[in-house]
Order: sequence, then structure tokens, then C-alpha cells
Amino acid sequence: MSVLIVGSTALDSIKTPKAENPRLLGGSASYAAVAASFFSPVHLVGIVGDDFPRRYIQLLKRHKIDLQGLQVVPGKTFHWSGEYELNMNNRRTLLTELGVFETFTPTLPETYRKSSFVLLANIAPSLQHHVLDQAVRPKFVAADTMDLWLNIALPDLLTLLKRLDLFVLNDSEAHQLTKEDNLFGALKRLHKLGPKYVIIKQGSHGSLLSGPRGLFLCPPYPLPSVVDPTGAGDSFVGALMGYLAAAGGSVDTHLRKAMVYGSVVASFCCEGFGLTRTAKLTRSQVEQRFRKLQQLCRY
Amino acid sequence: MSVLIVGSTALDSIKTPKAENPRLLGGSASYAAVAASFFSPVHLVGIVGDDFPRRYIQLLKRHKIDLQGLQVVPGKTFHWSGEYELNMNNRRTLLTELGVFETFTPTLPETYRKSSFVLLANIAPSLQHHVLDQAVRPKFVAADTMDLWLNIALPDLLTLLKRLDLFVLNDSEAHQLTKEDNLFGALKRLHKLGPKYVIIKQGSHGSLLSGPRGLFLCPPYPLPSVVDPTGAGDSFVGALMGYLAAAGGSVDTHLRKAMVYGSVVASFCCEGFGLTRTAKLTRSQVEQRFRKLQQLCRY
Repeated sequence: MSVLIVGSTALDSIKTPKAENPRLLGGSASYAAVAASFFSPVHLVGIVGDDFPRRYIQLLKRHKIDLQGLQVVPGKTFHWSGEYELNMNNRRTLLTELGVFETFTPTLPETYRKSSFVLLANIAPSLQHHVLDQAVRPKFVAADTMDLWLNIALPDLLTLLKRLDLFVLNDSEAHQLTKEDNLFGALKRLHKLGPKYVIIKQGSHGSLLSGPRGLFLCPPYPLPSVVDPTGAGDSFVGALMGYLAAAGGSVDTHLRKAMVYGSVVASFCCEGFGLTRTAKLTRSQVEQRFRKLQQLCRY
Repeated sequence: MSVLIVGSTALDSIKTPKAENPRLLGGSASYAAVAASFFSPVHLVGIVGDDFPRRYIQLLKRHKIDLQGLQVVPGKTFHWSGEYELNMNNRRTLLTELGVFETFTPTLPETYRKSSFVLLANIAPSLQHHVLDQAVRPKFVAADTMDLWLNIALPDLLTLLKRLDLFVLNDSEAHQLTKEDNLFGALKRLHKLGPKYVIIKQGSHGSLLSGPRGLFLCPPYPLPSVVDPTGAGDSFVGALMGYLAAAGGSVDTHLRKAMVYGSVVASFCCEGFGLTRTAKLTRSQVEQRFRKLQQLCRY
């Protein structure tokens, strides 16, 4: 089965203590779509300006990502610029130019509407709602978010939560949303807001799933060197949804393994600037690292 | 086989945002010894004053801990007082009264000298050296430490490292000692300093082993509520050494599982003030949580 992915498609200018890379392919939907493409066909919904480099379109096409839903319109592509501190965990935004994104209304092509798996990657909750309004009985709907929406669009996010099967957020967002210091307390409150499954991402410490079968501690793939963590969370949830769509059958059966694949693809993402490492990745490299991670956790 | 454990034996006055508990049984050797006692016989080396409550001696005896090496001398028992912040990770020391600890020279009773497994729990590196000088061909020597010794006794610690099989420290200590931001870089440098096995503790995120068989990611046991994390690291390494001593055979074969038992006993430690929860623990509760942790990580 295929995955429908909606989110931002952007140009990212990323500065780390070691290097600076202008106008890389970025955005939550780009990361998630490429990550999902290793497992299943992907339908992408997004918007870019007429300055969007042709090579990025080609990159997405090489991953057999269906771009019918990618609007290319006159104007500038969403441009984000950020800088990481030495520890690679703290980053600050230097610049956000919304460009054509300001007027984005995601529209699902007819062939997208019946997608069984829908990933609402990080984007304004009102747009995530709008996509769901057009989808026809999806089997499994997941959404990611960011602190910005908790600050400026909380009511939209709260109504969205009632329409989700899986909500993915990071630990600081979980604390912000629930006012709970403790992860267990936060998970309890998050379930009460709607979703059957909640995943709390913990950066380089892995992630935690809470669902009907209880908790699952998903290990991180430990990296000797992080080049650029941008998009790791989007890659995690993209790979997860791609794996679920490919596996078919019961989500309960496959979700834990899907998360581990998410960890693996996210680790590759961190090994290069933007999507540069992930874009060169092969499925067999993914499988190799998946087995390696199994070994790292075996006792 | 039995474990020889040397370290501090103290009275801890612990304040958290929720409660205050004066003069609890504390000290690295007390925590480690009780944790190890669930798996193997323990020989304890330490010192207390004549104010040391009789009930704490009884507690240690109930765990069949051999106290021949516990010196009881006129004067005051080492007293530490600390306060935790709301997140339970940051703590500050309010008071340190060394008392009889100031004159401590650990002396091994004859029956202790041939112990195969030696745990040098957190204590001044010069005293850790002194214990090793008296031990007769131990099979496996492990040591823990703390930031204080990195600051005031680094030369002693560096020579100690050459005498160890396993060195256990937390992530901030690893960074401080090696000047490496990255865990992999830190591990590489730590091995060069001597020990074949290095474990980096990461608090509530688990721990990481590096040894001849490569890396092992040891999961934490996730807790809904942490009452008091004091002694969790000592409990971890104590249980680990107790399990290794009981398992016999090759350390390489058992060390990963020993760490998971360490995680489990450390989690119980955090569920009560000082040793109050651990003191009531049974081996079957340990096994139950061990199996539960296996389930939490299975995919």
C-alpha cells in the first residue's frame, strides 16, 4: 500500500560549527517522503516556488515519489535558515521566509484520496485538518507537529488530535502540551486528547511508544558523528509510515518494528547535511543497519 | 562466587521537592552491596562511627552481607546532605561531614583477599588502589568514580584505570575526563587509558557498554515516578557485579545481561528514598521486572 504525505517542502540553509550549506532540499514532507520511499510508494502533497531547483525534483522522482500533489507556483520557495550549537542538540532559527507557503492550500489529486496510510508531517494543524477533510476513509492517520503550533494554533491542534490514530511529538513538546514533567503522565494525557498511539521522540536517546499493547522503548542507532540532525524526526516518522504501509495487516503487529526502521533511517539522515546522505541510501544499507541495531541491543 | 565491595558507608539526608528524609542509610558501598546481594554473597569493606544506627547494620545483615570488613570506630559516620530539583536530575550538595571517613584505610580481612570479583565503588582513587594492593589475583575488577575525583585526584585515578577490567562512569564524567563531546570518541580514549570494558551511564536513558564484543545499548527501566535517584548508579554497578559473580564463566558472555539486571535494580532504588525500596525487594520481583523490561524492548 502507499503513503500519502503532506507537509512543508522547503529550502534549508544550515549552519553547524563545522560547515555551512545553503539552500538544501528540506521541509518535513521532503524528509518524510524520501524516508518512506525505501519501503512503499509515496504520494507527496506540498508547494514550491518557481525557484525550486530542478535537481530536487529529480531527487524526489528518483525515489519514485508521486509528485502530482506538489504545486509549483510563481514566487519563492519556503526558505528556512538555522544554526546548530556545538552539541548539535540546540539550534536557533536565523531566518524564516514563507514565500509561496503563505498561500498554501493542500489539495489532494483524485488518485491520492483513497490512500490507506496518511502522514500529516509537521505543518500548520489547519492544513493537516484540510488534508484529512479530503481523504476517503484512511486506515491509519499519523501526525507530527512542532512547538510553534502549540504556541500559535493550539485549538486547531487539539481538534486534530481527535482525528488521529498516531500522534508523534518530541519530549519537550509533550511537556509543553500536557504540563506534565513525567513522560508517563504526559502519555496518559495525550491519549485522553484522542490518539490511540502516541510516540514521544527523545532525540539521540530513541523514542517511546504508548499504545494498546503497552509501552515500547525504541532504541536509537548510536552514531560516532552527527553531521546535521535537521529532518531526523521527519525521517523517523516517514520511514515508520512507509514500513507500516508496506507491511499491511495489523498496525499493532508491525508498529514496533516500523519504529526501529524509523530510528535506522533517521540515523542515516544525521550523517549528512539535509538529505544528502539519505538520498544516496539503499534498502540493503537500511537492512544492514537494522540488523546491526538488533545486535547492539541483544543480551 | 562472591563479590568484594569497597566504598563509602554513610548517612544521607535527602531533600526532594516532595519530602525530606534525614539520616538514611547511604554511601556507594551500601547501595552496591545491597544490590549485589540479590545475586551473590557480598563482602563489604567500609567505615562507620559509633553513631551508626544498629538498624542499618541489621539491614545489611538481613541481606547476608559479610560485615567483617566494616570498621566501626569512635566518632561520627560520614554524613552527606543533598537537595534535588523538581526534574530529579539536578542535585546540589548541602553538606558533607566526613567524620570517621577522613581517616579511613580500607583493610581486607584474610577471607576477603581471594575474592574473584572486586567492585571499587565510588571512593577516593587512592583508597581504591589500596584495596587492589591487598587483593590476591582477582578475576574481574570494576571501579566507579565521581566528578570530585576527576577534579582533585586525577593522577591517582589515571593509574587506577590501568588496573581495571571495567570502568563505570556517567556521561558528564566521561566528557570531563576525555574532553570528547562525542560518546564514541570518549569511549576510545577511555579504553586507551586501560580498561577493556567501559560503561557510560546515561541516567534515565540507560547505559552504553563498550568492550571486545563491541557496543551494547542497555535500556533503562522506565518509571512512572522517581521518588529519589540517590544511589541508582551504585545500585546499577552493584547488581551488575553480583550477577557476574553468580553467573561464573566468561564475563563476555554475561556482561550484557548483568547490565540489564543493573538497570532493573537501579529502577527499584529510584522508587523509594535511599535504600528503603531496595531493602524490601525480593529476587522474584527483580526477575519479574527483568522480564517486563524484555517485553518493553521486544519487536
